[in-house]
Amino acid sequence: MEDFLSKLCVHTFTTKPWPLETAVEKFAAAGVKGITVWRNALEGRDIFASGELIRSAGLQIVSLCRGGFFPSVSPQKRQAAIDDNRRAIDEAAALGAPLVVLVCGADPGQPLEVSRSQIRSGIEKVLPHAEANNIRLAIEPLHPMYAGDRSAVNTLAQANNMAEAIGSPLVGVAVDVYHLWWDPALESEIERCGKNNHLFAFHVCDWNIPTTDLLLDRGLMGEGCIPLKKIRSWVEKTGFTGFNEVEIFSTKFWAQDQDAFLQKIIHAYKNFT
Amino acid sequence: MEDFLSKLCVHTFTTKPWPLETAVEKFAAAGVKGITVWRNALEGRDIFASGELIRSAGLQIVSLCRGGFFPSVSPQKRQAAIDDNRRAIDEAAALGAPLVVLVCGADPGQPLEVSRSQIRSGIEKVLPHAEANNIRLAIEPLHPMYAGDRSAVNTLAQANNMAEAIGSPLVGVAVDVYHLWWDPALESEIERCGKNNHLFAFHVCDWNIPTTDLLLDRGLMGEGCIPLKKIRSWVEKTGFTGFNEVEIFSTKFWAQDQDAFLQKIIHAYKNFT
Repeated sequence: MEDFLSKLCVHTFTTKPWPLETAVEKFAAAGVKGITVWRNALEGRDIFASGELIRSAGLQIVSLCRGGFFPSVSPQKRQAAIDDNRRAIDEAAALGAPLVVLVCGADPGQPLEVSRSQIRSGIEKVLPHAEANNIRLAIEPLHPMYAGDRSAVNTLAQANNMAEAIGSPLVGVAVDVYHLWWDPALESEIERCGKNNHLFAFHVCDWNIPTTDLLLDRGLMGEGCIPLKKIRSWVEKTGFTGFNEVEIFSTKFWAQDQDAFLQKIIHAYKNFT
Repeated sequence: MEDFLSKLCVHTFTTKPWPLETAVEKFAAAGVKGITVWRNALEGRDIFASGELIRSAGLQIVSLCRGGFFPSVSPQKRQAAIDDNRRAIDEAAALGAPLVVLVCGADPGQPLEVSRSQIRSGIEKVLPHAEANNIRLAIEPLHPMYAGDRSAVNTLAQANNMAEAIGSPLVGVAVDVYHLWWDPALESEIERCGKNNHLFAFHVCDWNIPTTDLLLDRGLMGEGCIPLKKIRSWVEKTGFTGFNEVEIFSTKFWAQDQDAFLQKIIHAYKNFT
């Protein structure tokens, strides 16, 4: 329960083998202070009761992951995405999460510019519902290796442009080091989103060398080549006082004992702060 | 031997199972007009004689792949890279290739900025040798997923900045759609390198959805989501009249009959032009 853990948040997806209740119990016992809940962890559960369970364990609910996936060549699918994002906002409100993280989406069957336009339009369509529930929305730029099918927003500059164009205090960005560490404009773009007061979330992990899978081979902080302390210093320079959210998708770690993995996360976090 | 093949170049690495002599014979028979030779294809061979063989088959030698890999935390390794790049220039001269393509390199043990500075310094150190041999050097920005260990130059803007800073008519850039297609600044940066007359090479393939391997799952033109015709139109708008170089690394295609694969390449190229 040392103070150095006061800004440590762990995503439920990071310890995917654990059901929500186990994650909550284990995170709290280990001294983790924040939790970001993935929607799959809420399946089959009373969402309001889940929020109460998390709070009663002493954990702060940092965000709900994830909305987004707005673009599609199919108008029906675009409407379904709007509807699903409104449900995500409802779930965040029921859970007591102040923020929904948006993985914006892409459809390989259409140009990136069209997908980007549909993303902006989708966010604008769900914004009134977010406002009615006082839920913030974070545009999370994804690594360019996901431009084909997961997100047509691939740099922080694009996310900043979009958030500024939408111009709502409820729409900001999520900075994930995994997606953005390579970008030569990262420092200036972090500064920029800080100035606009729309840096809503900060996600950490590491980039393994070599990386063996495009999705499920993220590293623990310190294992790879991402300059974590430097990026974190840029984030903090903006006045950001939120959590450092550990978001690791890893077949390797999921196959290990999750209690031991959680201790590794805490150890790695200690070295990183 | 139709005219539509007049700008088709194939990299020896694309048909990796074929030794150089087979590739030359098969490319020429299929009506391919250009060849980019990878250095591994020259191993154990008289390089001058290999150049003669290629020319006598009616193929134009477009470039030699690849130099680069300048950055390292070790000064000895940096010097070894300089020496190796000078050898690559010698090999290009012996072969009769006017251009060496540079995969710039990165060392995960040091910041990207340091690697970038070492890349520029490395190019400047080999430039006199390139000038003495009248060999051009193309900085090839690599996809951000290779920033950790293969190239700290990951956007065309960075490559353009570096080429302009070096300021030699012998130093330009190679545009590979695989690495750059996602970049919202691609059109303007292609225009920019055209204006500076340093667009030296244009490489094509496609981005598979899903992509199952970070290195060896490139798609054939038309199989994936890259807007090839659009990017090609931007390239041609600059006045570029060089080859369209097919550079596909694919475990899947290498396991197939290479004659059939070459026919697929020609068919795909026909649809793409």
